[in-house]
Amino acid sequence: MVKFDYDGCGSFVSDEEQQRYVQTALKAYDLLMAGDGAGSDFLGWKTLPSDVPESLIEECEAVRDDWKAKGVDLVLVIGIGGSYLGSKCAIEALSHSFIRPEGVPQIVFAGQNLSEEYLSEVLDLAKIRNVACVVISKSGTTTEPAVAFRIIKNYIEETYGEKEASERIVAVTDARRGALKTLAERKGYRSFVVPDNVGGRFSVLTPVGLLPIVLAGFDVRQMLEGAAEMQKYLSLDRSEFNPAVLYASIRNLLYAEKGFSTEILVCYTPKLQYLGEWWKQLFGESEGKEGKGIFPASVVCTTDLHSMGQFIQDGSRNLFETVVSVEKSNRDLTVFPDGQNYDELNYLAGQHVEHCNAMAQLGTSMAHIEGGVPQMVLSIERINERNLGSLFYFFEFSCGISAYMLGVNPFNQPGVETYKHKMFALLKKPGYESI
Amino acid sequence: MVKFDYDGCGSFVSDEEQQRYVQTALKAYDLLMAGDGAGSDFLGWKTLPSDVPESLIEECEAVRDDWKAKGVDLVLVIGIGGSYLGSKCAIEALSHSFIRPEGVPQIVFAGQNLSEEYLSEVLDLAKIRNVACVVISKSGTTTEPAVAFRIIKNYIEETYGEKEASERIVAVTDARRGALKTLAERKGYRSFVVPDNVGGRFSVLTPVGLLPIVLAGFDVRQMLEGAAEMQKYLSLDRSEFNPAVLYASIRNLLYAEKGFSTEILVCYTPKLQYLGEWWKQLFGESEGKEGKGIFPASVVCTTDLHSMGQFIQDGSRNLFETVVSVEKSNRDLTVFPDGQNYDELNYLAGQHVEHCNAMAQLGTSMAHIEGGVPQMVLSIERINERNLGSLFYFFEFSCGISAYMLGVNPFNQPGVETYKHKMFALLKKPGYESI
Repeated sequence: MVKFDYDGCGSFVSDEEQQRYVQTALKAYDLLMAGDGAGSDFLGWKTLPSDVPESLIEECEAVRDDWKAKGVDLVLVIGIGGSYLGSKCAIEALSHSFIRPEGVPQIVFAGQNLSEEYLSEVLDLAKIRNVACVVISKSGTTTEPAVAFRIIKNYIEETYGEKEASERIVAVTDARRGALKTLAERKGYRSFVVPDNVGGRFSVLTPVGLLPIVLAGFDVRQMLEGAAEMQKYLSLDRSEFNPAVLYASIRNLLYAEKGFSTEILVCYTPKLQYLGEWWKQLFGESEGKEGKGIFPASVVCTTDLHSMGQFIQDGSRNLFETVVSVEKSNRDLTVFPDGQNYDELNYLAGQHVEHCNAMAQLGTSMAHIEGGVPQMVLSIERINERNLGSLFYFFEFSCGISAYMLGVNPFNQPGVETYKHKMFALLKKPGYESI
Repeated sequence: MVKFDYDGCGSFVSDEEQQRYVQTALKAYDLLMAGDGAGSDFLGWKTLPSDVPESLIEECEAVRDDWKAKGVDLVLVIGIGGSYLGSKCAIEALSHSFIRPEGVPQIVFAGQNLSEEYLSEVLDLAKIRNVACVVISKSGTTTEPAVAFRIIKNYIEETYGEKEASERIVAVTDARRGALKTLAERKGYRSFVVPDNVGGRFSVLTPVGLLPIVLAGFDVRQMLEGAAEMQKYLSLDRSEFNPAVLYASIRNLLYAEKGFSTEILVCYTPKLQYLGEWWKQLFGESEGKEGKGIFPASVVCTTDLHSMGQFIQDGSRNLFETVVSVEKSNRDLTVFPDGQNYDELNYLAGQHVEHCNAMAQLGTSMAHIEGGVPQMVLSIERINERNLGSLFYFFEFSCGISAYMLGVNPFNQPGVETYKHKMFALLKKPGYESI
């Protein structure tokens, strides 16, 4: 499923230190399992993999099939933060980089910024396509998605008429209250529920993530199975061998005792670029508070070995790496021999491109560890729905343990309000007169 | 052109400290201008904006026109690191996010990774399109681009025949020697020169960057003019008011005296996402050596306010920000009034979306500074070729000063070789038997 290897930390931490941190981690584990730590109103994600009913998946598929029958070839998914990154990550990981399969709509995200240019370009695209929209917002009043949805809803209503528009818009929102819930009821939109006890960054296995992933043509049953398997594994093994306990232990040890203040999530495929973004929100927002937290960064290799590689190898020594390693490629391409061999690559003739990638990864690991960068490795066999589900759950669970170890509430984000208050005052929103 | 504002650092540094660092920066400035600092064989970038001859641009345009006449609708640009990020940055900043103008080829990058899946998908796309290729490599033997080029060259030759292939492949490489130069001569490829005295991360205004940007349909004359204007401005003003001197001074002061170890490049438009990537290579590879250097990170707002925002506001206090601010949108879209106002946005009715974005930026700046994050702001009027040229030159010049202040050679990257040596040994490349 997911293999965890921390040999690359051996020269940086002693067994005694590790044991000490594992003991603290096990206390945090108990807190998380018992549900009596800080933020315990937001532990719904813990049992999501086994809680999601088959009927919910069928409802997602019904939307997919209805829109397919209408010939929809563009779905605008409106959301920001946790209502964006989970599905973006899964869809980028699973999709062909350039070609969309017949019968599957293009997924384009909107409402994840306030760029006038970007939103104008989304409308340009909408105007030449057959469009539907998923709007994801618990409240319906978060500025970015609300602005985008007001504009896109208007476009869809004007183009297809009010009645047809109500069949082309689906809301993912609060079960009972809020602006979007009210609007959805009044307009007759189908809606899906964002559970009260799951925070945004933990919501990829709710309809927030599942619906867009289904619409993009992927198998969320497999994703939930992978997550459920990981849920079972992590929740049954209260020991020093639990990989989430180990991951949380070692990263806190490196941070608190050894001066490593930045963690880089590393992958060796561009498909996982947005796993890095999703992970940065998960850990950054959960742990970055009260003047504490490991700064989360990410790189995609080997691309970034030619940009950030120099710094990681030889710059300030306050970095450690967590590599998400993919053992097998889903495609098949080899380097063939060339008579002239001007490029001196014949020594690779007959090798898979991915073999070169794997050796680059191995060589880089050795070089970085020698250079003073501790390294942990999480391996999956290949990129697919199942393994992504496992990874999502692994990181969520680890994050809960890790933030409890740090002594912060993993499930709030008080700092996010600060800029909003000032922005509202500057925008002269009623009720926000003072900056 | 570019405005520089460091008011957001006022509460973190004293005038006396700033003056002291400015004096050091002016010494570094002198070293850079005189060309007698470390790495002075690689100062060709300093005068590139005024050195690039009109004939070079015309040669780029001739390639563009020839390929247009052949109906080419896909140009594969093969390169990594500095042979990738400059043109990627400019093309992403200037292009429509979703729609390609009639008569302009799609630009797809390859050879910037060793992913078997990615390269297979590039070939899938090539097979349904009319293809040409630019291969960028000084030596022709860098593993990633060499592997990609061997495979893509073979595809083009098999599809179009040897003779036609030689008209569909252009090399950007060394003037005299190397594998790619040899191949280009033998096959009769048109070639462009990577100057000996310009390192990869400083090469965006050489054919390495200019040719792909021309092929993507943009005006490099404007880009060079913007850079030349900045060159003139920065090289004539040896004073404490020179913005490159100030930027280099303050970032070194924050790093060396105040414990700020990470700099985040912030922009408020997804168009500049790859400016962050280009900047990370420029500063990370120039400064990250000998156990020193400010760790370069980047965020795109407001997107990342909903992921990294919590950490920046309230996490570990070792971050400072440099914002690249864009004053005007190139498009026009306003929030309109809505009778029901369920989303409570009517207070924004009649406002440009970009006004909301600007207020988010201003509010965030205030919040982050209050939260303990020093901030500098570089402003451009709008995103266009001219202003990108100015930004490129500004950052390159600042980087030279800044790295000299740090006491390192800005123009080498010895750490990049370490992983390569191990990778070659693991791949059993002749001559690299020991790890």
